[in-house]
Amino acid sequence: MINFKEDKDLMPLNHSCAHVMAQAVKHLFPNAKFWVGPVVEEGFYYDIDLGDKVISEEDIENISKEMKKIIKDGKRIVRHEITRKEALDLFKDDPYKIDLINNMADDTNISCYTQGDYTDLCRGPHVESVKECKYFKLTKFSGAYWKGDSNNKMLQRIYGVCFRSEEDLNNHLQELEDAKERDHRKIGKDLKIYMMSDLVGRGLPMYLPNGFTLWNILENYIRDKEIKRGYVHVQTPPLGNVELYKTSGHLEHYKDSMFPIMQVEDEEYVLRPMNCPHHMVMYSNDLHSYKELPIRIAEIARDCRYEASGSLKGIERVRTFCQNDCHIFCTPEQIEAEFKGVVDLILEVYKELNITDYRFELSLRDKEDKVKYHQDDKMWDLAENKLREVLNDLKIDYVEKIGEAAFYGPKLDVQIKPAVGNEVTLSTCQLDFCLPAKFDLKYIDSDGSKKTPVVIHRAILGTLDRFIALYLEMTKGALPLWLSPVQVNILPVNNEYHDEYAKEIYELLKENDIRVELDNRDEKLGYRLRESQIRKIPYNLVIGDKEKDNNEVSYRMYSSQETKTLKKEEFVKLLLEEIKNKRV
Amino acid sequence: MINFKEDKDLMPLNHSCAHVMAQAVKHLFPNAKFWVGPVVEEGFYYDIDLGDKVISEEDIENISKEMKKIIKDGKRIVRHEITRKEALDLFKDDPYKIDLINNMADDTNISCYTQGDYTDLCRGPHVESVKECKYFKLTKFSGAYWKGDSNNKMLQRIYGVCFRSEEDLNNHLQELEDAKERDHRKIGKDLKIYMMSDLVGRGLPMYLPNGFTLWNILENYIRDKEIKRGYVHVQTPPLGNVELYKTSGHLEHYKDSMFPIMQVEDEEYVLRPMNCPHHMVMYSNDLHSYKELPIRIAEIARDCRYEASGSLKGIERVRTFCQNDCHIFCTPEQIEAEFKGVVDLILEVYKELNITDYRFELSLRDKEDKVKYHQDDKMWDLAENKLREVLNDLKIDYVEKIGEAAFYGPKLDVQIKPAVGNEVTLSTCQLDFCLPAKFDLKYIDSDGSKKTPVVIHRAILGTLDRFIALYLEMTKGALPLWLSPVQVNILPVNNEYHDEYAKEIYELLKENDIRVELDNRDEKLGYRLRESQIRKIPYNLVIGDKEKDNNEVSYRMYSSQETKTLKKEEFVKLLLEEIKNKRV
Repeated sequence: MINFKEDKDLMPLNHSCAHVMAQAVKHLFPNAKFWVGPVVEEGFYYDIDLGDKVISEEDIENISKEMKKIIKDGKRIVRHEITRKEALDLFKDDPYKIDLINNMADDTNISCYTQGDYTDLCRGPHVESVKECKYFKLTKFSGAYWKGDSNNKMLQRIYGVCFRSEEDLNNHLQELEDAKERDHRKIGKDLKIYMMSDLVGRGLPMYLPNGFTLWNILENYIRDKEIKRGYVHVQTPPLGNVELYKTSGHLEHYKDSMFPIMQVEDEEYVLRPMNCPHHMVMYSNDLHSYKELPIRIAEIARDCRYEASGSLKGIERVRTFCQNDCHIFCTPEQIEAEFKGVVDLILEVYKELNITDYRFELSLRDKEDKVKYHQDDKMWDLAENKLREVLNDLKIDYVEKIGEAAFYGPKLDVQIKPAVGNEVTLSTCQLDFCLPAKFDLKYIDSDGSKKTPVVIHRAILGTLDRFIALYLEMTKGALPLWLSPVQVNILPVNNEYHDEYAKEIYELLKENDIRVELDNRDEKLGYRLRESQIRKIPYNLVIGDKEKDNNEVSYRMYSSQETKTLKKEEFVKLLLEEIKNKRV
Repeated sequence: MINFKEDKDLMPLNHSCAHVMAQAVKHLFPNAKFWVGPVVEEGFYYDIDLGDKVISEEDIENISKEMKKIIKDGKRIVRHEITRKEALDLFKDDPYKIDLINNMADDTNISCYTQGDYTDLCRGPHVESVKECKYFKLTKFSGAYWKGDSNNKMLQRIYGVCFRSEEDLNNHLQELEDAKERDHRKIGKDLKIYMMSDLVGRGLPMYLPNGFTLWNILENYIRDKEIKRGYVHVQTPPLGNVELYKTSGHLEHYKDSMFPIMQVEDEEYVLRPMNCPHHMVMYSNDLHSYKELPIRIAEIARDCRYEASGSLKGIERVRTFCQNDCHIFCTPEQIEAEFKGVVDLILEVYKELNITDYRFELSLRDKEDKVKYHQDDKMWDLAENKLREVLNDLKIDYVEKIGEAAFYGPKLDVQIKPAVGNEVTLSTCQLDFCLPAKFDLKYIDSDGSKKTPVVIHRAILGTLDRFIALYLEMTKGALPLWLSPVQVNILPVNNEYHDEYAKEIYELLKENDIRVELDNRDEKLGYRLRESQIRKIPYNLVIGDKEKDNNEVSYRMYSSQETKTLKKEEFVKLLLEEIKNKRV
């Protein structure tokens, strides 16, 4: 999706289009007063005071028509600078503009842009002529409090986008439409994955039976893989004593993202924003010999972070979530092998989950920056070189980001391009030279001396919550069979007559641990099939005379019009094969 | 284990023995001052001020010897009543007794008991003669602050027990010894099940890899069973908005057991003490027809409750735990079938887990109590009669407890007798006529009218944390194979020579998903076997020449001295069978 604010051509074009829209509004509603009309990531908007009037769909159509007239008229857009006094005079009827002018520095001239009968206070830049704004679309509208403060008046906000060609505009609108269809909040509802409730609390998702089924399969999937690779899984509590986060340094550096502290007798508890400190304490529970390393302590770990309510979004951005986390405790000599193991696991998982649009970023220190980075040049050089070597050996393309490493060590991030929205970091593998020392962690080396292990923080699926959101958007909810909460829906054509055979198939599938539903409601077949389609159930079995008489099943797969018929045992075999192979 | 405080014969006997002990202390330490010497659940104790002296093992022996002399001397124990003034004069040298007298009501006479040269302020009752205290044992000693306040002086507390016969005493001492061995805190350490850390916080257990393995097997075990019985599993967050607990009434009635409230923007969050309200909100997310009921919403749900630090105990009594919880939403007509289903599940699980020492308690309302109980006689009568019928039909012995029902409905509790300590409620099945109404839950009945469902709260394993504690104590940590975190330990006799074959066996078992360790450390076989014994690993394979040459394995089971030999494939088959059958 285009970021209008960062596109050097589209930014002024959309800014000009905002002015065209304001001009059209002024023509239709002469008493309109204007606040601000900026370009944002998703296009432009303008906040307008229309008195008591609330914008309707019809108004939007009329405004669009008026905009087209203005554009056709083709006035030039002219910049001119005026003094503060002139500006206050020019906008004397518009209290919002006066407010803006009063908040500008005293001694500057103020720039305005004029097109025909419309002049707006504006820093610019703009395009040459309103003609260029031809390919626009007003996309949505809503109320918006002046200055975002609910104590202020509610203004009317109208959003739009503008492009250089009709094709670009149409493509973008198609993308918007697509994004709406892909939005995990919509799919999450259609597929009954999760629910939110203000009574339960904002940003606290509740996974419905289907959602938990998906969650549980993913959790077992990644855990089994990790255990096969020699990880051990543990379970630690979602809160801890504040002292723990003083020791780790989180309380000092991360407090704004943490929930309030709870006083319990003489202890102070806090919901944990991350579980590294718990795992550090677990490592320190035993004496360790170098022979035991690496130790890979993994957990599907519940964390809680404060997020402003305005930035919460479905299960993508929440206040409590579970990380697919692990801390690898190893010797400096083991960094290479452990790093390779993590990259290997990432690639394996991405392949199986059909995640194809991703790239690697290797964040290294800036050697010149002696303030930010933990001072241990030998360790940094060793680690950075090893990380590079591994990526080169694996023939992985990656970008080096100098000065982007955390203060405690270099890291590898895997950036994926989700189906909706901007690039995000899905997997990460971070070396840490500092935290083990803060917890005074040790191992006995072969020469009998006590040494501090290196810690590798790593996550493959990130948080399970956000992963499910991204995955629903990537697949449009049409999950592969092995991940589908409901794998098969059985629909007897004529309820009474076919029910018995439908139940037989139902039991057969149940016995084979296939997640199956029997929809024998007293509704027309077409209605039931459509509902199954919305729920994106992979296999739909229609049970009629022929099926019953021949001991067969006829099935239609989601997004296919074709009906196929198989002997029932063969059908079971087909399903079990597909599940086993995790076919996408 | 005997509860001395509640045993009508042992209570006065132990009380008298406390006096005998005090008398002996006074003989040996003439300056001793005495605070109180009560009988408690575990026997008697006396708190004594010995100046700066701290009691030692040697002192305990001397006190015991002196007690035996006093008992042999056989003085009668005589009660007499004196006035307050006489009492203050009699105990003028003992400030602790003066403190006690000053706290008594003004106008009462004060009773004392005298035996030979010793008189103590005491309410009684006592036995006739010190002779009766012959079979005693001083069991432990410790420091104890006067009145339990750490600002006060530390006194010396000596504990003891007293019985009517040598046999009873010895049996009890054996039981104590056994309880120490069975204590889940000891076994939890030996088997590396969990750890606690003050840095992480009191009452917040951290499950180590072995503990999480056990946890995960139990969680899957009970969840799979529930899903087979038509339950759906969900996942809800461990906290909620305070409004949720206002709606449910918990905030009003349960606040003392809840963690402090956290202010987040304009919301107030609280760690949840129970998850019923979350499940109520989940039910209300959809419209429901009577055809959909019963709906059984289950969760291995994390809750957090405030417990005083003094009452925390291992993973038995903690501040955060996971309940094996479910809420069944049903029509009144479905109560019988649902209740039967729950009882059936309880019996099935107990049988498989070899829990044999339990009894059922059916708690009903007191019909006369019009204040405590929710007023709906028809519903109560229906429910109580159905519950009785089900238990009678299943030929289950049960005790009726009139007036013990919760205000919201009747319940069935299953009381088990754990290996250590007193009877506890493990499983519960509680009808609730009130909570669904508080959340305004509805279903559309067959006649189109809106009705309120009945809710059944039920738990089978209780909390997984406490269940693991009880189960470790019941089995002394010798878990059945299917629950053992480590199922097989492979011990090559001579490391270099037998290692290859040991590794082959290791891989073979791994491939069959058997949890196996290979202990090829450079330590003597006897040492390694002893360690394996402490960890109670069920199967120990000793790999020597014979095994390697014949492609066999020789195994010794935990707690058996016998060594058996099998072809390796047969051994795998044996293990898989035993795991599948959940043999205990």
